Amino acid sequence: MNNEIEVFDDERIDSLEIKDYKIIQKTKGFCFGMDAVLLSDFANVKKGGKSLDLCSGTGVIPILMEAKGKGELFKTLEIQKIYAQLIERNIKLNKLENKFETICGDLKEWKKYFKPNEFDTVTCNPPYMKDGSAIKNAEDLKLIARHEILCNLEDVITCAFNVLKVKGHFYMVHRAYRTADILALLTKHKLEPKRIRYVYPNNKSEANIILVDAVKCGKPECRIEKPLIVYGDDNLYTQELYDIYGMENPNI
Amino acid sequence: MNNEIEVFDDERIDSLEIKDYKIIQKTKGFCFGMDAVLLSDFANVKKGGKSLDLCSGTGVIPILMEAKGKGELFKTLEIQKIYAQLIERNIKLNKLENKFETICGDLKEWKKYFKPNEFDTVTCNPPYMKDGSAIKNAEDLKLIARHEILCNLEDVITCAFNVLKVKGHFYMVHRAYRTADILALLTKHKLEPKRIRYVYPNNKSEANIILVDAVKCGKPECRIEKPLIVYGDDNLYTQELYDIYGMENPNI
Repeated sequence: MNNEIEVFDDERIDSLEIKDYKIIQKTKGFCFGMDAVLLSDFANVKKGGKSLDLCSGTGVIPILMEAKGKGELFKTLEIQKIYAQLIERNIKLNKLENKFETICGDLKEWKKYFKPNEFDTVTCNPPYMKDGSAIKNAEDLKLIARHEILCNLEDVITCAFNVLKVKGHFYMVHRAYRTADILALLTKHKLEPKRIRYVYPNNKSEANIILVDAVKCGKPECRIEKPLIVYGDDNLYTQELYDIYGMENPNI
Repeated sequence: MNNEIEVFDDERIDSLEIKDYKIIQKTKGFCFGMDAVLLSDFANVKKGGKSLDLCSGTGVIPILMEAKGKGELFKTLEIQKIYAQLIERNIKLNKLENKFETICGDLKEWKKYFKPNEFDTVTCNPPYMKDGSAIKNAEDLKLIARHEILCNLEDVITCAFNVLKVKGHFYMVHRAYRTADILALLTKHKLEPKRIRYVYPNNKSEANIILVDAVKCGKPECRIEKPLIVYGDDNLYTQELYDIYGMENPNI
Protein backbone atom coordinates (compact mmCIF):
# COMPACT_ATOMS: atom_id res chain seq x y z
CA MET A 1 0.00 0.00 0.00
CA ASN A 2 2.84 2.39 0.81
CA ASN A 3 5.03 1.51 -2.10
CA GLU A 4 4.82 4.99 -3.59
CA ILE A 5 5.52 6.77 -0.29
CA GLU A 6 9.06 6.94 1.03
CA VAL A 7 9.45 6.03 4.69
CA PHE A 8 12.93 6.65 6.05
CA ASP A 9 14.89 4.68 8.61
CA ASP A 10 14.25 7.26 11.33
CA GLU A 11 10.49 7.06 10.80
CA ARG A 12 7.63 4.77 11.71
CA ILE A 13 4.04 4.38 10.51
CA ASP A 14 1.22 4.42 13.06
CA SER A 15 -2.48 3.80 12.64
CA LEU A 16 -4.83 6.71 13.36
CA GLU A 17 -7.57 4.21 14.31
CA ILE A 18 -10.05 5.88 11.99
CA LYS A 19 -10.92 5.11 8.32
CA ASP A 20 -7.68 3.11 7.99
CA TYR A 21 -5.76 6.37 8.02
CA LYS A 22 -2.11 6.15 8.91
CA ILE A 23 0.60 8.60 9.83
CA ILE A 24 4.35 8.62 9.33
CA GLN A 25 6.20 10.04 12.32
CA LYS A 26 9.85 10.77 13.11
CA THR A 27 10.92 8.23 15.72
CA LYS A 28 13.21 10.79 17.37
CA GLY A 29 11.12 13.83 16.52
CA PHE A 30 7.88 15.13 17.94
CA CYS A 31 5.24 12.40 17.72
CA PHE A 32 1.58 13.24 17.93
CA GLY A 33 -0.06 12.59 21.26
CA MET A 34 -3.26 13.14 23.12
CA ASP A 35 -3.17 16.90 22.44
CA ALA A 36 -3.74 16.40 18.72
CA VAL A 37 -6.49 13.82 19.19
CA LEU A 38 -8.31 16.03 21.70
CA LEU A 39 -8.05 19.13 19.51
CA SER A 40 -9.30 17.35 16.39
CA ASP A 41 -12.30 16.24 18.43
CA PHE A 42 -12.91 19.64 20.06
CA ALA A 43 -12.63 21.59 16.79
CA ASN A 44 -15.47 21.95 14.32
CA VAL A 45 -15.55 23.09 10.72
CA LYS A 46 -18.74 23.99 8.95
CA LYS A 47 -19.78 22.04 5.87
CA GLY A 48 -17.59 23.11 2.97
CA GLY A 49 -15.45 25.10 5.41
CA LYS A 50 -11.87 26.03 4.70
CA SER A 51 -9.40 25.26 7.44
CA LEU A 52 -5.77 26.09 8.23
CA ASP A 53 -3.53 24.23 10.67
CA LEU A 54 -0.60 26.23 12.06
CA CYS A 55 2.61 24.66 13.43
CA SER A 56 1.30 21.57 11.70
CA GLY A 57 4.11 19.08 12.49
CA THR A 58 3.09 15.76 10.93
CA GLY A 59 -0.27 17.18 9.79
CA VAL A 60 -2.10 14.86 12.15
CA ILE A 61 -4.71 17.38 13.34
CA PRO A 62 -6.27 18.21 9.93
CA ILE A 63 -5.92 14.57 8.82
CA LEU A 64 -7.95 13.47 11.87
CA MET A 65 -10.44 16.28 11.27
CA GLU A 66 -10.90 15.19 7.67
CA ALA A 67 -11.38 11.59 8.81
CA LYS A 68 -14.15 12.76 11.14
CA GLY A 69 -15.84 14.64 8.30
CA LYS A 70 -14.94 18.04 9.72
CA GLY A 71 -14.24 20.31 6.76
CA GLU A 72 -13.43 19.91 3.10
CA LEU A 73 -10.40 22.05 2.30
CA PHE A 74 -7.31 22.00 4.47
CA LYS A 75 -4.14 24.01 4.35
CA THR A 76 -1.23 23.32 6.65
CA LEU A 77 1.61 25.67 7.51
CA GLU A 78 4.86 24.28 8.91
CA ILE A 79 8.14 26.14 9.28
CA GLN A 80 10.50 23.14 9.34
CA LYS A 81 11.13 21.82 5.83
CA ILE A 82 11.64 18.25 7.01
CA TYR A 83 8.17 18.32 8.60
CA ALA A 84 6.50 20.07 5.67
CA GLN A 85 7.79 17.23 3.48
CA LEU A 86 6.50 14.72 6.03
CA ILE A 87 3.03 16.31 5.92
CA GLU A 88 3.06 15.94 2.11
CA ARG A 89 3.89 12.25 2.41
CA ASN A 90 1.17 11.80 5.06
CA ILE A 91 -1.33 13.44 2.72
CA LYS A 92 -0.36 11.06 -0.08
CA LEU A 93 -0.35 8.08 2.26
CA ASN A 94 -4.02 8.77 3.03
CA LYS A 95 -4.88 9.82 -0.56
CA LEU A 96 -5.95 13.30 0.51
CA GLU A 97 -4.10 15.29 -2.17
CA ASN A 98 -7.26 16.88 -3.57
CA LYS A 99 -8.34 18.25 -0.19
CA PHE A 100 -5.00 19.32 1.28
CA GLU A 101 -2.26 21.84 0.56
CA THR A 102 1.01 22.09 2.48
CA ILE A 103 3.00 25.28 2.83
CA CYS A 104 6.49 25.44 4.28
CA GLY A 105 6.81 28.89 5.83
CA ASP A 106 6.87 31.16 8.83
CA LEU A 107 3.50 32.14 10.31
CA LYS A 108 4.86 35.60 11.09
CA GLU A 109 4.98 36.06 7.28
CA TRP A 110 1.39 34.89 6.78
CA LYS A 111 0.78 37.56 4.13
CA LYS A 112 3.12 35.71 1.76
CA TYR A 113 0.90 32.64 1.75
CA PHE A 114 -2.64 33.64 2.65
CA LYS A 115 -5.26 36.30 2.08
CA PRO A 116 -6.72 38.15 5.06
CA ASN A 117 -10.03 36.58 6.18
CA GLU A 118 -9.40 33.47 4.10
CA PHE A 119 -10.36 30.71 6.55
CA ASP A 120 -13.44 29.56 8.45
CA THR A 121 -11.32 27.71 10.97
CA VAL A 122 -7.74 27.82 12.21
CA THR A 123 -6.32 25.06 14.41
CA CYS A 124 -3.03 25.00 16.28
CA ASN A 125 -1.08 22.85 18.73
CA PRO A 126 1.68 25.40 19.22
CA PRO A 127 5.07 25.09 20.89
CA TYR A 128 4.07 25.38 24.52
CA MET A 129 7.27 25.98 26.47
CA LYS A 130 7.96 29.64 27.05
CA ASP A 131 11.70 29.38 27.54
CA GLY A 132 12.63 29.35 23.87
CA SER A 133 15.30 31.96 24.32
CA ALA A 134 17.23 29.68 26.67
CA ILE A 135 17.49 26.85 24.16
CA LYS A 136 20.93 26.48 22.57
CA ASN A 137 20.43 23.69 20.08
CA ALA A 138 17.75 25.19 17.85
CA GLU A 139 18.44 22.49 15.26
CA ASP A 140 16.70 19.88 17.35
CA LEU A 141 13.35 19.01 15.77
CA LYS A 142 11.64 18.22 19.05
CA LEU A 143 12.83 21.42 20.69
CA ILE A 144 11.46 23.57 17.88
CA ALA A 145 8.13 21.78 18.11
CA ARG A 146 7.92 22.21 21.88
CA HIS A 147 9.58 25.54 22.67
CA GLU A 148 8.79 29.05 21.56
CA ILE A 149 11.97 29.36 19.51
CA LEU A 150 10.72 30.28 16.03
CA CYS A 151 7.39 31.78 17.09
CA ASN A 152 5.66 32.64 20.33
CA LEU A 153 2.03 32.48 21.40
CA GLU A 154 1.31 36.05 20.35
CA ASP A 155 2.69 35.36 16.85
CA VAL A 156 0.34 32.38 16.54
CA ILE A 157 -2.68 34.35 17.75
CA THR A 158 -1.88 37.34 15.52
CA CYS A 159 -1.63 35.10 12.46
CA ALA A 160 -4.86 33.28 13.36
CA PHE A 161 -6.74 36.55 13.75
CA ASN A 162 -5.54 37.87 10.39
CA VAL A 163 -6.29 34.82 8.27
CA LEU A 164 -9.68 34.07 9.87
CA LYS A 165 -12.98 35.38 8.55
CA VAL A 166 -15.02 37.49 10.96
CA LYS A 167 -16.85 35.01 13.23
CA GLY A 168 -14.37 32.31 12.18
CA HIS A 169 -13.14 29.95 14.90
CA PHE A 170 -9.62 29.52 16.24
CA TYR A 171 -9.12 26.21 18.06
CA MET A 172 -6.04 25.73 20.16
CA VAL A 173 -4.72 23.11 22.57
CA HIS A 174 -2.18 24.25 25.14
CA ARG A 175 -0.83 23.67 28.64
CA ALA A 176 -3.40 24.58 31.30
CA TYR A 177 -0.81 26.48 33.36
CA ARG A 178 -0.64 29.09 30.60
CA THR A 179 -4.38 29.84 30.84
CA ALA A 180 -4.06 33.48 31.94
CA ASP A 181 -1.52 34.31 29.25
CA ILE A 182 -3.61 32.56 26.57
CA LEU A 183 -6.90 34.24 27.47
CA ALA A 184 -5.32 37.67 27.87
CA LEU A 185 -3.62 37.44 24.46
CA LEU A 186 -6.73 36.10 22.71
CA THR A 187 -8.84 38.90 24.18
CA LYS A 188 -6.21 41.50 23.25
CA HIS A 189 -6.27 40.32 19.63
CA LYS A 190 -10.07 40.22 19.36
CA LEU A 191 -10.28 36.45 19.33
CA GLU A 192 -12.96 36.06 21.98
CA PRO A 193 -12.83 32.79 23.94
CA LYS A 194 -16.29 31.20 23.67
CA ARG A 195 -15.70 27.60 24.80
CA ILE A 196 -13.00 26.34 27.13
CA ARG A 197 -12.51 22.77 28.19
CA TYR A 198 -10.01 21.58 30.75
CA VAL A 199 -8.50 18.12 30.67
CA TYR A 200 -7.78 16.58 34.08
CA PRO A 201 -5.67 13.37 34.29
CA ASN A 202 -8.17 12.22 36.93
CA ASN A 203 -10.78 13.86 39.14
CA LYS A 204 -8.26 14.44 41.94
CA SER A 205 -5.62 16.19 39.80
CA GLU A 206 -5.04 19.65 38.48
CA ALA A 207 -5.85 20.17 34.81
CA ASN A 208 -2.85 19.78 32.51
CA ILE A 209 -4.41 20.67 29.15
CA ILE A 210 -6.67 23.49 28.00
CA LEU A 211 -8.76 23.43 24.82
CA VAL A 212 -9.97 26.82 23.61
CA ASP A 213 -12.46 27.81 20.93
CA ALA A 214 -12.15 31.54 20.21
CA VAL A 215 -14.26 33.50 17.73
CA LYS A 216 -12.90 36.41 15.70
CA CYS A 217 -14.74 39.54 16.88
CA GLY A 218 -17.06 37.37 19.00
CA LYS A 219 -19.10 38.74 21.88
CA PRO A 220 -17.71 38.32 25.40
CA GLU A 221 -18.82 35.44 27.64
CA CYS A 222 -17.60 31.89 27.40
CA ARG A 223 -18.68 28.43 28.45
CA ILE A 224 -16.41 26.34 30.67
CA GLU A 225 -17.40 22.91 29.44
CA LYS A 226 -17.73 19.86 31.68
CA PRO A 227 -14.36 18.52 32.84
CA LEU A 228 -12.68 16.02 30.53
CA ILE A 229 -11.29 13.31 32.80
CA VAL A 230 -8.68 10.99 31.28
CA TYR A 231 -8.53 8.23 33.90
CA GLY A 232 -11.50 7.13 36.00
CA ASP A 233 -11.43 6.03 39.63
CA ASP A 234 -10.52 2.54 38.35
CA ASN A 235 -7.31 3.98 36.77
CA LEU A 236 -8.64 2.97 33.34
CA TYR A 237 -9.37 5.38 30.49
CA THR A 238 -12.82 6.91 30.80
CA GLN A 239 -15.45 6.02 28.22
CA GLU A 240 -15.23 9.56 26.84
CA LEU A 241 -11.53 9.07 26.08
CA TYR A 242 -12.31 5.89 24.15
CA ASP A 243 -15.06 7.74 22.30
CA ILE A 244 -12.69 10.57 21.35
CA TYR A 245 -10.04 8.10 20.14
CA GLY A 246 -12.75 6.21 18.26
CA MET A 247 -11.63 2.97 19.90
CA GLU A 248 -13.60 0.16 21.49
CA ASN A 249 -13.44 0.19 25.28
CA PRO A 250 -12.03 -3.29 26.08
CA ASN A 251 -13.25 -2.98 29.67
CA ILE A 252 -16.99 -3.06 29.01
CA MET B 1 -27.76 36.53 73.34
CA ASN B 2 -28.83 39.07 70.73
CA ASN B 3 -30.48 41.51 73.09
CA GLU B 4 -27.95 44.26 72.31
CA ILE B 5 -28.18 43.82 68.56
CA GLU B 6 -31.12 45.23 66.68
CA VAL B 7 -32.72 42.87 64.21
CA PHE B 8 -35.37 44.48 62.04
CA ASP B 9 -38.59 43.04 60.69
CA ASP B 10 -37.15 42.65 57.20
CA GLU B 11 -34.22 40.62 58.51
CA ARG B 12 -33.49 37.10 59.68
CA ILE B 13 -30.66 35.45 61.61
CA ASP B 14 -28.99 32.39 60.13
CA SER B 15 -26.36 30.09 61.61
CA LEU B 16 -22.97 30.01 59.87
CA GLU B 17 -22.49 26.41 61.08
CA ILE B 18 -19.08 27.24 62.51
CA LYS B 19 -18.07 28.36 66.03
CA ASP B 20 -21.71 29.28 66.77
CA TYR B 21 -21.31 32.28 64.51
CA LYS B 22 -24.51 33.79 63.16
CA ILE B 23 -25.36 36.27 60.48
CA ILE B 24 -28.19 38.76 60.09
CA GLN B 25 -29.44 38.98 56.51
CA LYS B 26 -32.02 41.10 54.70
CA THR B 27 -34.91 38.80 53.82
CA LYS B 28 -35.55 40.67 50.59
CA GLY B 29 -31.95 41.70 49.96
CA PHE B 30 -28.96 39.76 48.77
CA CYS B 31 -28.43 36.77 51.06
CA PHE B 32 -25.12 35.00 51.19
CA GLY B 33 -24.92 31.79 49.26
CA MET B 34 -22.49 29.16 48.12
CA ASP B 35 -20.21 31.80 46.52
CA ALA B 36 -19.28 33.27 49.89
CA VAL B 37 -18.74 29.90 51.53
CA LEU B 38 -16.55 28.69 48.66
CA LEU B 39 -14.48 31.88 48.61
CA SER B 40 -13.88 31.87 52.36
CA ASP B 41 -12.63 28.31 51.99
CA PHE B 42 -10.49 29.01 48.90
CA ALA B 43 -8.88 32.16 50.35
CA ASN B 44 -5.93 32.11 52.70
CA VAL B 45 -4.44 34.77 54.95
CA LYS B 46 -1.03 34.40 56.53
CA LYS B 47 -0.71 34.42 60.32
CA GLY B 48 -1.21 37.94 61.56
CA GLY B 49 -2.22 38.97 58.05
CA LYS B 50 -4.34 42.02 57.33
CA SER B 51 -7.29 41.45 55.07
CA LEU B 52 -9.82 43.62 53.21
CA ASP B 53 -13.18 42.47 51.85
CA LEU B 54 -14.58 44.57 49.00
CA CYS B 55 -18.30 44.75 48.12
CA SER B 56 -18.74 43.16 51.51
CA GLY B 57 -22.55 42.91 51.71
CA THR B 58 -23.37 41.27 55.04
CA GLY B 59 -19.67 40.77 55.85
CA VAL B 60 -20.10 37.01 55.65
CA ILE B 61 -16.81 36.29 53.84
CA PRO B 62 -14.40 37.78 56.41
CA ILE B 63 -16.56 36.49 59.28
CA LEU B 64 -16.27 32.95 57.88
CA MET B 65 -12.53 33.46 57.30
CA GLU B 66 -12.06 34.60 60.89
CA ALA B 67 -14.02 31.57 62.10
CA LYS B 68 -11.65 29.32 60.15
CA GLY B 69 -8.63 31.03 61.71
CA LYS B 70 -7.67 32.73 58.45
CA GLY B 71 -6.24 36.12 59.42
CA GLU B 72 -6.36 38.44 62.40
CA LEU B 73 -7.32 41.90 61.20
CA PHE B 74 -10.21 42.46 58.85
CA LYS B 75 -11.50 45.56 57.16
CA THR B 76 -14.66 45.55 55.09
CA LEU B 77 -15.70 48.09 52.49
CA GLU B 78 -19.34 48.41 51.48
CA ILE B 79 -20.91 51.19 49.44
CA GLN B 80 -24.53 50.81 50.60
CA LYS B 81 -25.05 52.39 54.01
CA ILE B 82 -27.78 49.95 54.97
CA TYR B 83 -25.38 47.05 54.40
CA ALA B 84 -22.42 48.73 56.10
CA GLN B 85 -24.64 49.09 59.19
CA LEU B 86 -25.62 45.43 58.84
CA ILE B 87 -21.95 44.40 58.76
CA GLU B 88 -21.39 46.33 61.99
CA ARG B 89 -24.26 44.52 63.66
CA ASN B 90 -22.95 41.17 62.38
CA ILE B 91 -19.53 41.98 63.83
CA LYS B 92 -21.11 42.76 67.21
CA LEU B 93 -23.34 39.69 67.03
CA ASN B 94 -20.23 37.53 66.78
CA LYS B 95 -18.18 39.65 69.22
CA LEU B 96 -15.53 40.44 66.63
CA GLU B 97 -15.26 44.19 67.26
CA ASN B 98 -11.57 44.05 68.14
CA LYS B 99 -10.63 42.31 64.89
CA PHE B 100 -12.93 44.07 62.43
CA GLU B 101 -13.43 47.53 60.99
CA THR B 102 -16.26 48.50 58.64
CA ILE B 103 -16.02 51.33 56.14
CA CYS B 104 -18.96 52.64 54.16
CA GLY B 105 -17.52 53.96 50.94
CA ASP B 106 -16.87 53.64 47.22
CA LEU B 107 -13.96 51.41 46.20
CA LYS B 108 -13.18 53.77 43.33
CA GLU B 109 -12.20 56.25 46.06
CA TRP B 110 -9.98 53.75 47.89
CA LYS B 111 -7.37 56.45 48.61
CA LYS B 112 -9.79 58.07 51.05
CA TYR B 113 -9.86 55.00 53.27
CA PHE B 114 -6.68 52.99 52.75
CA LYS B 115 -2.95 53.35 52.25
CA PRO B 116 -1.36 51.89 49.12
CA ASN B 117 0.07 48.40 49.79
CA GLU B 118 -1.80 48.14 53.09
CA PHE B 119 -3.17 44.58 52.89
CA ASP B 120 -1.82 41.04 52.67
CA THR B 121 -5.10 39.77 51.27
CA VAL B 122 -8.10 41.22 49.46
CA THR B 123 -11.28 39.21 48.97
CA CYS B 124 -14.30 40.04 46.83
CA ASN B 125 -17.59 38.55 45.67
CA PRO B 126 -18.37 41.39 43.27
CA PRO B 127 -21.54 42.24 41.39
CA TYR B 128 -21.32 39.78 38.54
CA MET B 129 -23.88 40.90 35.96
CA LYS B 130 -22.40 43.09 33.28
CA ASP B 131 -25.60 44.84 32.24
CA GLY B 132 -25.60 47.43 35.01
CA SER B 133 -26.27 50.24 32.60
CA ALA B 134 -29.61 48.71 31.64
CA ILE B 135 -30.95 48.64 35.19
CA LYS B 136 -33.56 51.27 35.93
CA ASN B 137 -34.25 50.78 39.60
CA ALA B 138 -30.81 51.42 41.09
CA GLU B 139 -32.37 51.70 44.53
CA ASP B 140 -32.96 48.00 44.71
CA LEU B 141 -30.52 46.43 47.18
CA LYS B 142 -30.34 43.10 45.37
CA LEU B 143 -29.73 44.73 41.99
CA ILE B 144 -26.81 46.77 43.31
CA ALA B 145 -25.30 43.66 44.85
CA ARG B 146 -25.66 41.67 41.64
CA HIS B 147 -25.20 44.12 38.78
CA GLU B 148 -22.28 46.33 37.85
CA ILE B 149 -24.16 49.52 38.65
CA LEU B 150 -21.93 51.31 41.17
CA CYS B 151 -18.65 49.63 40.18
CA ASN B 152 -17.46 47.31 37.46
CA LEU B 153 -14.95 44.48 37.45
CA GLU B 154 -12.08 46.73 36.42
CA ASP B 155 -12.82 49.11 39.32
CA VAL B 156 -12.66 46.18 41.76
CA ILE B 157 -9.40 44.88 40.28
CA THR B 158 -7.81 48.34 40.21
CA CYS B 159 -8.68 48.90 43.87
CA ALA B 160 -7.39 45.44 44.87
CA PHE B 161 -4.08 46.05 43.08
CA ASN B 162 -3.55 49.38 44.77
CA VAL B 163 -4.31 48.38 48.36
CA LEU B 164 -2.42 45.05 48.21
CA LYS B 165 1.20 44.64 49.20
CA VAL B 166 3.53 43.30 46.51
CA LYS B 167 3.04 39.49 46.48
CA GLY B 168 -0.25 39.98 48.33
CA HIS B 169 -3.18 37.80 47.25
CA PHE B 170 -6.47 38.84 45.67
CA TYR B 171 -9.19 36.20 45.99
CA MET B 172 -12.33 36.53 43.94
CA VAL B 173 -15.40 34.42 43.22
CA HIS B 174 -17.25 35.12 40.00
CA ARG B 175 -19.39 33.60 37.26
CA ALA B 176 -17.40 31.14 35.15
CA TYR B 177 -18.74 32.59 31.89
CA ARG B 178 -16.75 35.77 32.57
CA THR B 179 -13.45 33.87 32.74
CA ALA B 180 -11.80 35.56 29.74
CA ASP B 181 -12.73 39.03 30.90
CA ILE B 182 -11.56 38.31 34.46
CA LEU B 183 -8.19 36.86 33.48
CA ALA B 184 -7.50 39.55 30.89
CA LEU B 185 -8.26 42.34 33.39
CA LEU B 186 -6.25 40.73 36.19
CA THR B 187 -3.25 40.30 33.88
CA LYS B 188 -3.61 43.86 32.59
CA HIS B 189 -3.48 45.19 36.16
CA LYS B 190 -0.49 43.04 37.22
CA LEU B 191 -2.55 40.75 39.43
CA GLU B 192 -1.23 37.47 38.08
CA PRO B 193 -3.67 34.54 38.35
CA LYS B 194 -1.82 31.74 40.18
CA ARG B 195 -4.63 29.35 41.18
CA ILE B 196 -7.97 28.89 39.48
CA ARG B 197 -10.69 26.51 40.56
CA TYR B 198 -13.87 25.82 38.66
CA VAL B 199 -17.07 24.73 40.36
CA TYR B 200 -19.25 22.35 38.36
CA PRO B 201 -22.82 21.60 39.56
CA ASN B 202 -22.07 17.96 38.63
CA ASN B 203 -19.53 16.16 36.47
CA LYS B 204 -21.74 16.38 33.38
CA SER B 205 -22.36 20.15 33.55
CA GLU B 206 -20.51 23.25 32.54
CA ALA B 207 -18.79 25.15 35.34
CA ASN B 208 -20.89 27.98 36.79
CA ILE B 209 -18.45 29.47 39.29
CA ILE B 210 -14.77 30.44 39.07
CA LEU B 211 -12.52 30.97 42.09
CA VAL B 212 -9.33 32.93 41.39
CA ASP B 213 -6.23 33.54 43.49
CA ALA B 214 -4.14 36.29 41.88
CA VAL B 215 -0.82 37.61 43.21
CA LYS B 216 0.25 41.25 42.89
CA CYS B 217 3.27 41.33 40.58
CA GLY B 218 3.38 37.50 40.59
CA LYS B 219 5.18 35.49 37.92
CA PRO B 220 3.09 34.08 35.07
CA GLU B 221 1.81 30.49 35.14
CA CYS B 222 -1.18 29.27 37.09
CA ARG B 223 -2.58 26.04 38.43
CA ILE B 224 -6.04 24.90 37.37
CA GLU B 225 -7.03 23.01 40.49
CA LYS B 226 -9.03 19.79 40.50
CA PRO B 227 -12.69 20.31 39.62
CA LEU B 228 -14.98 21.14 42.52
CA ILE B 229 -18.14 19.11 41.96
CA VAL B 230 -21.22 20.13 43.93
CA TYR B 231 -23.52 17.13 43.37
CA GLY B 232 -22.26 13.57 42.93
CA ASP B 233 -23.70 10.91 40.63
CA ASP B 234 -26.18 10.13 43.42
CA ASN B 235 -27.54 13.74 43.23
CA LEU B 236 -26.38 14.32 46.81
CA TYR B 237 -23.80 16.89 47.87
CA THR B 238 -20.26 15.59 47.49
CA GLN B 239 -18.18 15.00 50.60
CA GLU B 240 -15.98 17.97 49.65
CA LEU B 241 -19.00 20.28 49.79
CA TYR B 242 -19.88 19.05 53.28
CA ASP B 243 -16.23 19.57 54.27
CA ILE B 244 -16.25 23.14 52.94
CA TYR B 245 -19.50 23.92 54.75
CA GLY B 246 -18.08 22.29 57.88
CA MET B 247 -21.20 20.15 58.15
CA GLU B 248 -21.61 16.47 58.87
CA ASN B 249 -22.52 14.43 55.82
CA PRO B 250 -25.84 12.78 56.83
CA ASN B 251 -25.47 10.21 54.04
CA ILE B 252 -22.43 8.35 55.38
